Amino acid sequence: MNCSLNHAYDVEMATRLLDPADTRVSHALADRGGLVVVDSGFHATHREELLTYLEARLPHLPTHTITISEEAKQLDTVLDICRQAQRRGLARRDVLVAVGGGVCCDVVSVAATLIRRGLPYLTIPTTLLAQVDAGIGLKGAVNFDGSKNYLGCFRPPTAVFVDPGFLTTLPEVELRSGMAEMVKIAMVRDADLLRELRRHGPSLLATGFRHPPDKGNALIERSIMLMLDELAQNPFEETELRRLADFGHTFSTRFEEASRWQLRHGEAVALDMALSGALSVELGMLPDRDFADLVLLLRDLGLPVVSPLVTHSAVREGVRAAVLHRAGRLNLVVPERGGTAAFVTEPSVLTSTVISRALERLTEAARRCQAALPSSSPVVSSA
Amino acid sequence: MNCSLNHAYDVEMATRLLDPADTRVSHALADRGGLVVVDSGFHATHREELLTYLEARLPHLPTHTITISEEAKQLDTVLDICRQAQRRGLARRDVLVAVGGGVCCDVVSVAATLIRRGLPYLTIPTTLLAQVDAGIGLKGAVNFDGSKNYLGCFRPPTAVFVDPGFLTTLPEVELRSGMAEMVKIAMVRDADLLRELRRHGPSLLATGFRHPPDKGNALIERSIMLMLDELAQNPFEETELRRLADFGHTFSTRFEEASRWQLRHGEAVALDMALSGALSVELGMLPDRDFADLVLLLRDLGLPVVSPLVTHSAVREGVRAAVLHRAGRLNLVVPERGGTAAFVTEPSVLTSTVISRALERLTEAARRCQAALPSSSPVVSSA
Repeated sequence: MNCSLNHAYDVEMATRLLDPADTRVSHALADRGGLVVVDSGFHATHREELLTYLEARLPHLPTHTITISEEAKQLDTVLDICRQAQRRGLARRDVLVAVGGGVCCDVVSVAATLIRRGLPYLTIPTTLLAQVDAGIGLKGAVNFDGSKNYLGCFRPPTAVFVDPGFLTTLPEVELRSGMAEMVKIAMVRDADLLRELRRHGPSLLATGFRHPPDKGNALIERSIMLMLDELAQNPFEETELRRLADFGHTFSTRFEEASRWQLRHGEAVALDMALSGALSVELGMLPDRDFADLVLLLRDLGLPVVSPLVTHSAVREGVRAAVLHRAGRLNLVVPERGGTAAFVTEPSVLTSTVISRALERLTEAARRCQAALPSSSPVVSSA
Repeated sequence: MNCSLNHAYDVEMATRLLDPADTRVSHALADRGGLVVVDSGFHATHREELLTYLEARLPHLPTHTITISEEAKQLDTVLDICRQAQRRGLARRDVLVAVGGGVCCDVVSVAATLIRRGLPYLTIPTTLLAQVDAGIGLKGAVNFDGSKNYLGCFRPPTAVFVDPGFLTTLPEVELRSGMAEMVKIAMVRDADLLRELRRHGPSLLATGFRHPPDKGNALIERSIMLMLDELAQNPFEETELRRLADFGHTFSTRFEEASRWQLRHGEAVALDMALSGALSVELGMLPDRDFADLVLLLRDLGLPVVSPLVTHSAVREGVRAAVLHRAGRLNLVVPERGGTAAFVTEPSVLTSTVISRALERLTEAARRCQAALPSSSPVVSSA
């Protein structure tokens, strides 16, 4: 049997998306029924705005609010959505609409995969992390029995609308977490974006992405373009399991599991990027000065670079899990000179000595720049 | 983003598949790890044969036996498989192998969809129903909160091996259920196959598909080719929701739900085919004599044509559910003259009068041929 499928979809920058006069979302629904799944975090701050919009443009759409966190990123949350869809009699071409952060987009895409063997869905990511990463791709997942993202799917959304206006009310700790994903894609793809993040990141963080004017939108759009370009090369990860976009996502999984989901995703990614940078120096692939710049940038963005979770055994455990997930290869992404990266394919390269030295280098670098670590996260501490 | 995918897979007729000298399955695994999920029904009759084969050819593969029935076709059964995969450390390219009936193949394909966002899987269907229908396609599903197949997926297997030798030990009630799917595909696609089923069906049923010699294999192979040809036209049901292979699968879902999974799938399909035939006569699309032939064939194959479950309200409920599932259209498949069929698109065509007359016609036809109904099924009775 042969069939050829086209999985194109648009990610649209869409300011003032919930203006009652705006028709972008309602046009995308095109008279179909559906269910709007709203993240309680967004609901708390934008309830009136969302309800006014729906009342004006999509009065027939019911809403279902879910309270989610990485801890609640479980199949039960997906099944709650499935049950709502069943009770409200959603038809085969009706649409799930995700309005929320990365976890909300993740669980909605898994629900959309399963309900009636697949409903269309569209996402309106409302956090920075979702807007530049988790809410714009085609992967969804939930944690299972302590394993992060063990159950999931590949399912392209129908459309994605990104409104940076939502960021003005986002807590800074959330913005920092999203910023980690922007650093990630800049480190492996774009020296210019990296420079821009160094220059404007702290101000954007402090002002809910309002200052400098226009920089917020521009840097988000650039991050999205790079991310989509990475995805487009191998959207279903069928041809191979090497992805530059996995920078910061090899050991972070283990750190999140070990923290029992107390560590934010972006914080775990920051820890992983710093560690991968140190490993890259040890392997002779990154100059020490570039590593110091990375540590400094993460510090300036209020992201952690060291933690009691980053241990020799956690690194080894992370290697083991990555090899299972990447079909026998490690495929660790390590940064090289500004805006480029390479893969460490063989797990044997990371000898016990290399790991120990990298951990020492990391501790020393953190000490040198006296990284200002967020006090909000109980599992993150300075060296 | 654009990507083009090729979803070809082979369904291979494979007699003596579990001969320890046979390398077809082990070649398909190609040195990968995996997990063999075995239907307890098959396990009971072929345990030694299967274990001897695995010992000889795939000694590293663990097995996981599941006890399943339509009643146990739930997400929990899928999650048991996911848990086994997790505990046994299956890697991203490792393979799930389904050895069993349609429900076993169904739950394995859902598990393969979810685990690590997708593992490859192959199926070895061991019942007639699975060999000609449920185990050879790319759809998997489980029931959810009383709704049949509410949660599921489209996921092509890597390969399918069909060994009719397994049928020699299959209980006749299981053979009859599979025969219903052969009648289904013959009715809508192939007058020759229909004639062959009339002529040889009862003998094949009585002899575990051994007599007449070679007829069993030939008719199974023909049924598979027709089914795959239907699937290939629209494998993911994206272009439209009209499928000839849905003949007998519009009201049957409702009958199965109403029986609380006591009715066998093939029995429900037989009831639906007889009902759809009667509706077709009422709509002037099928000569009464052809309808009588269909009822007679089902009777000769020991399949039910009437039941207390086939009521006016069940028909209306079936129409309502089908319209939801087929995005606003009914798309009821109704048989026309031998080996062809048409679609009833608009639900309004099935007026209360049409339904009532069809039900009367059905009762009368059943009475006339004094349908010999299987006594094993508590919810099936003669008119």
